[in-house]
Amino acid sequence: MATIGILGGGQLARMLAIAGAPLGHRFLVVDSAPDACAAQVAPVLQADWRDFAALGKFASQVDVATFDFENVPTDTAQWLTSHTRVFPNPAALAVAQDRLLEKALFAEIGLDTPTYAAVDSIDGLRAAVATTGLPAVLKTRRLGYDGKGQYVIRQNADIEPAWASLGGVPLILEAFVAFEREVSVIAVRSRNGEFRHYPLTRNWHRDGILSVSLAPLPGDPDLEARAVDRARTLAEHLDYVGVFALELFVVDGSLLGNEMAPRVHNSGHWTIEGAVCSQFENHVRAVLGLPLGDTRANGYSAMLNWIGELPDAKPVLAESRGHWHDYGKSSRAGRKVGHATVCADSPTELADRLRRIGLALGREAQVRPAVEVLTS
Amino acid sequence: MATIGILGGGQLARMLAIAGAPLGHRFLVVDSAPDACAAQVAPVLQADWRDFAALGKFASQVDVATFDFENVPTDTAQWLTSHTRVFPNPAALAVAQDRLLEKALFAEIGLDTPTYAAVDSIDGLRAAVATTGLPAVLKTRRLGYDGKGQYVIRQNADIEPAWASLGGVPLILEAFVAFEREVSVIAVRSRNGEFRHYPLTRNWHRDGILSVSLAPLPGDPDLEARAVDRARTLAEHLDYVGVFALELFVVDGSLLGNEMAPRVHNSGHWTIEGAVCSQFENHVRAVLGLPLGDTRANGYSAMLNWIGELPDAKPVLAESRGHWHDYGKSSRAGRKVGHATVCADSPTELADRLRRIGLALGREAQVRPAVEVLTS
Repeated sequence: MATIGILGGGQLARMLAIAGAPLGHRFLVVDSAPDACAAQVAPVLQADWRDFAALGKFASQVDVATFDFENVPTDTAQWLTSHTRVFPNPAALAVAQDRLLEKALFAEIGLDTPTYAAVDSIDGLRAAVATTGLPAVLKTRRLGYDGKGQYVIRQNADIEPAWASLGGVPLILEAFVAFEREVSVIAVRSRNGEFRHYPLTRNWHRDGILSVSLAPLPGDPDLEARAVDRARTLAEHLDYVGVFALELFVVDGSLLGNEMAPRVHNSGHWTIEGAVCSQFENHVRAVLGLPLGDTRANGYSAMLNWIGELPDAKPVLAESRGHWHDYGKSSRAGRKVGHATVCADSPTELADRLRRIGLALGREAQVRPAVEVLTS
Repeated sequence: MATIGILGGGQLARMLAIAGAPLGHRFLVVDSAPDACAAQVAPVLQADWRDFAALGKFASQVDVATFDFENVPTDTAQWLTSHTRVFPNPAALAVAQDRLLEKALFAEIGLDTPTYAAVDSIDGLRAAVATTGLPAVLKTRRLGYDGKGQYVIRQNADIEPAWASLGGVPLILEAFVAFEREVSVIAVRSRNGEFRHYPLTRNWHRDGILSVSLAPLPGDPDLEARAVDRARTLAEHLDYVGVFALELFVVDGSLLGNEMAPRVHNSGHWTIEGAVCSQFENHVRAVLGLPLGDTRANGYSAMLNWIGELPDAKPVLAESRGHWHDYGKSSRAGRKVGHATVCADSPTELADRLRRIGLALGREAQVRPAVEVLTS
């Protein structure tokens, strides 16, 4: 029996604790919020990321520490490494926290990216627009997630409002990519360097937040092989241990790196029921040095994210292989409060289930893109 | 979100809480032990079954109450029904707590049993032996489980020692059954009377404790249909809500009723990974009035019980579809401390995995009977 410390107490920590409980492992979560939803399934130490007295107590009680949240200050993560084992290593967090470092990493591992430029002033922004062309997306380099900290610049007249909205912190301007699709690789690397990946997942966002994931994809094996190869190179480059996600755009059959997440990822939630061993159990196995689990899919799966508030669970539970996840959070606009995963033995059976659920919940628009791919 | 109260805080409560957590439900457990293993995953109220002040507080905090343990006093269970909803109803507990009532129930639903006689005195025991013949098994009518409270009478000379060992409480003498196999039906009935069952499970015991379960069984569909029919009749007769187990002996192709358990059951643990919706999730769904989940098997599964102490997890985790369950208990002779479930797409693949695990753990004897069935 080991105790796994988790920095951050959101739904990812919650699902890690639920996945690790059958294996007999205990968890201790640190979060600054008094109502972290992981507290319903694991003990939570309420503390700030800079409270080193509390973090020292935390470190003394755990065998290994990991993250539900990539924006833990890297000096906190680094400090922890001298008090307990920490996976993934803080260097991976540092890269993921800064869009500019992330882009540089992608270049190092031979992964193309959208054209971009660092922006630190209004004049710099004008110069960056000349580099990227329009439309382009101005983003904070740090602390952005789920579409927060972003401003789309469609014409020159948007430059000043964009700067007024985001200026004052380090920014990056990225060329707007008219991508055909967004995909992600969820992969895991063990302490001794073994690498496994789940089937390539296709993702659809709404208002900058993940709405639907679908896996495995009816076939482009070459695309999958290239994406997985980049993910493996990235993991080896960072000497990464644990689960991570590499988000990619597909443009004219080519892959462009979008983001990497040094943690279990929303686009891998389907693996709880749709793969032999889930991303959550595999992360637990990896950070503890246990054998990695089988990442193969069991049929076809679609994950529907519930944002803001939960719909009625019954239409999902009434479907064979309909699975419900309520994170135990209160409702709030833009907040991830739960998800459903629906699995099936064939693409058409999955499409049928999604259609019925979409209709029953009045969410036809949400399920439509996945249904279209499954029936095309 | 509902709060489900559970009377008893052992591994069944623990697995119920783990299964219910993703659905967003909370749990509150009552147990008299300070170290109940469910406490690692849910809040536990430490109280005696007769502490009605504590039970009143418990009832006021839950939406529905259920059981991890069938030996909760029936007057406690009955008292609870006037303070909260209770599933299954206490009548089912009363029957399961008394081997004589259980046998009478089996007769009522048309299920044969081994020959038996109630025993309340040494003279009564001699008369009972004349009825059942020898060998026979003397058992306490109440509070027996995992082979406890039993004495095998092989010859007349055993009668007095048997009485000396168990006499003084109500007893039952049962003819010893030279059964070909032991099977169990794990089934679930909803609040509105819907009935679903898992595939028939074959079980092997050692020293009176379940050692291995295997499901689904390479085929005798007629036997399965008869067993399920008896289980359905039993559930309807008791107006049962939730998951239960009906344990049966197979003798010359006929079914004899052995025991019923008014709760999730050890011989259904394989359903966590081996069925679409586990017995634990289905029990939660049933007591909350949610749609029942799909009880179909996903391939072939074997459950290996760990008694006394846990072996090394790694040989199990190294197998694809090898799943590990550590109940978080300390080691103690005869105690159920965990289990492993190993699944596969075919009987021969499952046999191969079991052989490798048996060899790696020095438990060839434990896996052998399942391997023999899978390869015969």
